[in-house]
Amino acid sequence: EMRHGVPTVHKKFGEPVAILAGDILFSKAYQTLVKTKHQADAVQNMVSRLASACVEVCEGQMLDIKMAESDDIPTRDQYITMIRKKTAALFDVSCAMGAICANAKPNDITNLSNFGLNLGIAFQITDDLIGVMGDPTVTKKPVGNDIREGKKSLPILMAIDAAQNTTHYKNILDVFGNHRSSKSKLNKAVDSIRSLGIESKVREIACTYANKADKRINSYTNDTKKEIESLLGFVVKRSV
Amino acid sequence: EMRHGVPTVHKKFGEPVAILAGDILFSKAYQTLVKTKHQADAVQNMVSRLASACVEVCEGQMLDIKMAESDDIPTRDQYITMIRKKTAALFDVSCAMGAICANAKPNDITNLSNFGLNLGIAFQITDDLIGVMGDPTVTKKPVGNDIREGKKSLPILMAIDAAQNTTHYKNILDVFGNHRSSKSKLNKAVDSIRSLGIESKVREIACTYANKADKRINSYTNDTKKEIESLLGFVVKRSV
Repeated sequence: EMRHGVPTVHKKFGEPVAILAGDILFSKAYQTLVKTKHQADAVQNMVSRLASACVEVCEGQMLDIKMAESDDIPTRDQYITMIRKKTAALFDVSCAMGAICANAKPNDITNLSNFGLNLGIAFQITDDLIGVMGDPTVTKKPVGNDIREGKKSLPILMAIDAAQNTTHYKNILDVFGNHRSSKSKLNKAVDSIRSLGIESKVREIACTYANKADKRINSYTNDTKKEIESLLGFVVKRSV
Repeated sequence: EMRHGVPTVHKKFGEPVAILAGDILFSKAYQTLVKTKHQADAVQNMVSRLASACVEVCEGQMLDIKMAESDDIPTRDQYITMIRKKTAALFDVSCAMGAICANAKPNDITNLSNFGLNLGIAFQITDDLIGVMGDPTVTKKPVGNDIREGKKSLPILMAIDAAQNTTHYKNILDVFGNHRSSKSKLNKAVDSIRSLGIESKVREIACTYANKADKRINSYTNDTKKEIESLLGFVVKRSV
């Protein structure tokens, strides 16, 4: 398999080596934290937050697997809970640890932590949109890849919901989770999702999370604020 | 596959779930450390040692994979380096962290750390002996399992070395790494290894490490010493 146009570690070096590489990176993160010159209580705070975030990421990944195995289509709340753990927990802890390293006050740490959480949710929603509607020449994945894979992501569950009692319903369900779908049927499904206006609806939801994130840094005035605000804009507007 | 008579996690729940379970346990270890009521600098010391030990375990596992893939038979030194990382690093850090939790002095932490290291080496050497000569009704693995698997463990590399220019050589090499070996050929190979006196030679080497471990706790006088000394005796004498 390929990711971003390069072979994955487990394809190139085999599964045992890939698992070991992942385990080493886990440990290297904690080694890096203790090697910093921060005070022992700051290090303890970061280790605690990082370990909890890693547990959350695993739980989120587990929810994702369970969701994929289930015959049910999840609710939007279930989807948000899943990506909050799977993706946003790591954005959250990354921002919080930056604040801790800068000796920020507890209130500022909370603001940055919450900024990261909402940035992460906005990021994952947009990522899942690209997984469905993305340009194959840019994403290097087949047209409508995530529909074919049967992924229960926000754009797909919104599309299935909006398509009820319309001619689009069959077009989408025909290829949903069907690995042998033809390119023309996949294009038809993506066209249906486009006609239903799913892209703008999903981007709107991503924007509500980006706005929540923005509010958390609103009161700050220094130059760094501009940098992270532009990051926020990029995450929701990007098509790659 | 089975381990100790029960199905492995990856067979029972699938590989993705097994990998996630391992990742969660990694994080739970650090969560447990920061939840203890020890001083921040003791926690930092333990996180640092645990992370380094985890990196060593991964490196040792990697050496084990490389050794298995190679056409060469490793030297005894290469084997000891491998198990020192793969197994003994975890015994080492476990003992060191116990000492740190008990607010032991640096010199006592070093003694306990070194006790664990040598205990771990003695444990793995004995474990590898059982993998070759162990009673199948007790180990729940086939006769001569590790010879059939082509494992390059100490008893096997000593047996191959001792068998040179004898009739035993062919008996051992015939089944070494040959998954389709018959039970009678495997029994023949194990009998050859027995005739070469490998068991007592390997147990002697395990004992030299157990003695090194014992020396490190020699100067202590309390009751706990008896407990960990009996552990040392069990590890080198056990046949399970």
